[in-house]
Amino acid sequence: MSNNGEIRRRGLMLVLSSPSGAGKSTLSRALLADDNAIRLSVSATTRARRPGETEGKDYFFVSPARFEEMVKADAFFEHAHVFDHRYGTPKQPVVDALRAGSDVLFDIDWQGTQQLKEQARDDLVSIFILPPSHDELERRLKARAQDTDEVVTRRMAKAAAEISHWPEYDYVVVNRDVKRALEQIKAILEAERARRTRLVGVGDFVAELTKS
Amino acid sequence: MSNNGEIRRRGLMLVLSSPSGAGKSTLSRALLADDNAIRLSVSATTRARRPGETEGKDYFFVSPARFEEMVKADAFFEHAHVFDHRYGTPKQPVVDALRAGSDVLFDIDWQGTQQLKEQARDDLVSIFILPPSHDELERRLKARAQDTDEVVTRRMAKAAAEISHWPEYDYVVVNRDVKRALEQIKAILEAERARRTRLVGVGDFVAELTKS
Repeated sequence: MSNNGEIRRRGLMLVLSSPSGAGKSTLSRALLADDNAIRLSVSATTRARRPGETEGKDYFFVSPARFEEMVKADAFFEHAHVFDHRYGTPKQPVVDALRAGSDVLFDIDWQGTQQLKEQARDDLVSIFILPPSHDELERRLKARAQDTDEVVTRRMAKAAAEISHWPEYDYVVVNRDVKRALEQIKAILEAERARRTRLVGVGDFVAELTKS
Repeated sequence: MSNNGEIRRRGLMLVLSSPSGAGKSTLSRALLADDNAIRLSVSATTRARRPGETEGKDYFFVSPARFEEMVKADAFFEHAHVFDHRYGTPKQPVVDALRAGSDVLFDIDWQGTQQLKEQARDDLVSIFILPPSHDELERRLKARAQDTDEVVTRRMAKAAAEISHWPEYDYVVVNRDVKRALEQIKAILEAERARRTRLVGVGDFVAELTKS
């Protein structure tokens, strides 16, 4: 038996999506800090590196020409234009992580999730995070006291558009309380790690168990 | 909005199966003690009540004629002959519990699980519990010092037959350590409670969130 009868597992791709104002960044950071077996997917981008950002940690910084080459080589799971820049999720680091039994966290919107799903359905676990109430969402979107009603209304409309995609996700978590929402996300991650279809070597383990 | 925009959930049916000697009874008892939202499914049986057993808690004790009536009325999710007696899982209490958002635990073998799955696929979450090793399984099956090798061999063969059905389950948990296995089962339960398809009223909740 090549694996000594040990059960191993294939990593999974955990997607967290939400409108801004739902507390997703806080939850992602807390999850990454608490769980050593999951790492954040690092995107490639054509935008310039900002002070304090590290190549390969915050982003892979690439030229527009290199980005276009990668698109042509089908090296991205998903990519998008945001304002004047391009952003994409390189496939190879994710494929390597999953094979090694590590999980990868994706902080992406519904469009990125759709693209990911088309290419990696079996490895994907998706969670949509909802804010607890209309008032709380509005409060969080009113980032600064001087924001005009118009600005907040525009942000709210953007949040509403993102929220309308909740039915495309596997799980829904309402972030009433960060601690509780984090517990739920960790439970989902732990459960999905025990999913039969992700386990490798159970057949050999069972053969060893039941040998006569 | 009839539900005040509250998200509720439909209950789920949690099946734990394992060969004897894998620690399932201990895990079931611990889960029921720790989690108030899940209750054990109570079977109906034609066998006589034993001292200390309570009607409606340990079993519903029914006559063979009544049992047969229930079979004919399609009142069981699954039923089986064990030695001279009949055992079955009445549908109605389970249906009522799920509708009220309570979960129901089933401590049944692979055959019962198959029957349940045919009738309630969407509500079912199934976990197969494996013993940690061949030696440990044998040790646990050697219940008494005076058990002959033949008795243990027969029990081992029965365990092996049950174990061969692990690929029919959603999750696989290896019981190396009761505390750890219990944590995994609780995580599975918590995750499945947040599964989108089990939530009721998300549409109304979201409409309330994003009203302008």
